[in-house]
Amino acid sequence: MIKLVLDCEGGDRSPSVNVLGAVKALKEKDDLSLILTGKKEDLENELSKLDYPKDRLTIVDAPEVIDCKEAPTLSLFHKRDSSLVKALDILKNDDDVKGFVSLGNSGAILVGGVVKVGKIPGVLRPAFCPLMPSMDGHYVAVCDSGASSEATKEELFQFGLMGSLYLEKAFDVKSPRVALLNIGTEEAKGDTLHKEAYQLLKGSSLNFIGNMEARDTLSGKYDLIVADGFSGNVLIKSTEGTGLEMLKLLKRTFFKNLKNKIGALFLKKDIYGIKDFMDYNNYGGAVTLGVKKTMVKGHGGDNEKHFYHCIIQAYNMEKNNLGPAIEEALK
Amino acid sequence: MIKLVLDCEGGDRSPSVNVLGAVKALKEKDDLSLILTGKKEDLENELSKLDYPKDRLTIVDAPEVIDCKEAPTLSLFHKRDSSLVKALDILKNDDDVKGFVSLGNSGAILVGGVVKVGKIPGVLRPAFCPLMPSMDGHYVAVCDSGASSEATKEELFQFGLMGSLYLEKAFDVKSPRVALLNIGTEEAKGDTLHKEAYQLLKGSSLNFIGNMEARDTLSGKYDLIVADGFSGNVLIKSTEGTGLEMLKLLKRTFFKNLKNKIGALFLKKDIYGIKDFMDYNNYGGAVTLGVKKTMVKGHGGDNEKHFYHCIIQAYNMEKNNLGPAIEEALK
Repeated sequence: MIKLVLDCEGGDRSPSVNVLGAVKALKEKDDLSLILTGKKEDLENELSKLDYPKDRLTIVDAPEVIDCKEAPTLSLFHKRDSSLVKALDILKNDDDVKGFVSLGNSGAILVGGVVKVGKIPGVLRPAFCPLMPSMDGHYVAVCDSGASSEATKEELFQFGLMGSLYLEKAFDVKSPRVALLNIGTEEAKGDTLHKEAYQLLKGSSLNFIGNMEARDTLSGKYDLIVADGFSGNVLIKSTEGTGLEMLKLLKRTFFKNLKNKIGALFLKKDIYGIKDFMDYNNYGGAVTLGVKKTMVKGHGGDNEKHFYHCIIQAYNMEKNNLGPAIEEALK
Repeated sequence: MIKLVLDCEGGDRSPSVNVLGAVKALKEKDDLSLILTGKKEDLENELSKLDYPKDRLTIVDAPEVIDCKEAPTLSLFHKRDSSLVKALDILKNDDDVKGFVSLGNSGAILVGGVVKVGKIPGVLRPAFCPLMPSMDGHYVAVCDSGASSEATKEELFQFGLMGSLYLEKAFDVKSPRVALLNIGTEEAKGDTLHKEAYQLLKGSSLNFIGNMEARDTLSGKYDLIVADGFSGNVLIKSTEGTGLEMLKLLKRTFFKNLKNKIGALFLKKDIYGIKDFMDYNNYGGAVTLGVKKTMVKGHGGDNEKHFYHCIIQAYNMEKNNLGPAIEEALK
């Protein structure tokens, strides 16, 4: 049995999307057992409308909510009765609970994970690893994208190793294509840190295909982008920001005048396809790699399909023993 | 009289676009004088079709061409008869020549500028500063975007100062809104370098409005983004890359089937508007800030309108004494 704890607050449409996602996952996986933290009454209310295997779902009451905008460390300390902190405490204290899924405050999840759950032996620095859609219809992971604001060459190497194992275990990507985010593709590009990290990655057993430039992020050429937390953070935010700004521009164009509105009607379905393609709901969340238990963070603005994908992602990571694989590889 | 030297090779449609842009600028500005470097015969051939003030245009023969993909330092050394090196030599040796414009190899222009022309007294590190379109219909400059792969806090501060003066002198932006690229907007965000640079910028006379996140690059909230060369490079390339990938996706959608093609016909004009909006041709090039003379680098794939804009940009920088203003401000 794989037991996970789900923080059921923190998303824009929580706890409804969390409960719906949880029930969908429970029905699909016979060996999955879930603990839901949140306002008991609300959770029971949502669940009362649904049919689900009751023996594999437990509720733990947590009357408080941590907001997405709250300071992570302070909120962890002050809101001990929140769904997020209660879920983290269960993750920490219950040996049977193997993973955690939340749509809540990224900073609190990251800090809480490292402080409460601790690092896998051998891991120098945990990393935050989200997924972005790539133009070949798959996705690309970025590790680290901002768990820290700096890194050493050994840490960059470990990001490559952990990220690569993660893609294998969670998504069955065979021999993930790993690239190092740099300011040029040639081997000698970048500062000392990146030149040295290049050599470590090149000399490893990873499927390292060299440096990559930020303009090729979505190209589909890579499965994993290894980055220091600062530039990885710039990479994911500028990619996301540009995508959103362009969709806004497109929308403005479609509604500009009657002629455009008519044209947009013809295109409607496939333009939604573009939005859909860029939509995080269709795949999993970001993971904290290098901590002792599985931690998945979904997008707060998203729907039950996304939360369901995040649960399945955590389930796969546990089922395929990602944590032990990382520990073994770092020996 | 403002005298500039123009490298007339290195672009996809050189020397034609260079000559057309040069003649357009010459006709518009009475106090502009130009030296064109390139294959003499080709330049004369292009010019023979045009009417222009002959007393303000000189040709210097340069039979070689440096390719966009050549190694910058090597090409500077080996191709002394190239239009780019000849133009740099003229810039270096002729006291009357105040500026340089090229569509050629960025690396060679950057290295050549620093080595041959030298830094303005007081400048710690020159910076490469391109423009990106912003959603309010203006543009945002990024300084540094990759002249170096690292920076100190003092250098980041100087990037803010030089970039700010540049926007004032070249584009008449009053009191440019300066932001520091960071991994969060709060004052205490980022690594030590960025925290310290924040304090230097905050304590200065610049219109510093704080940290910014990469997702807000195109938002129109900022005129100048101060960045270390590594993350600045990631920022501009991921923004550009995402924009291009989305246009490709859009194009694929438009041509997918007959229904979509019909819809696209209605929208054609305004969709071109989006392309146009993102098009570098409509404004100037990237500048090397902190070197003794004005240096503008345009996009190699672009047209005569863009080259013309680059010339006018260099003209304005000289006309409004950007170099002396930077030197004075750094005292």
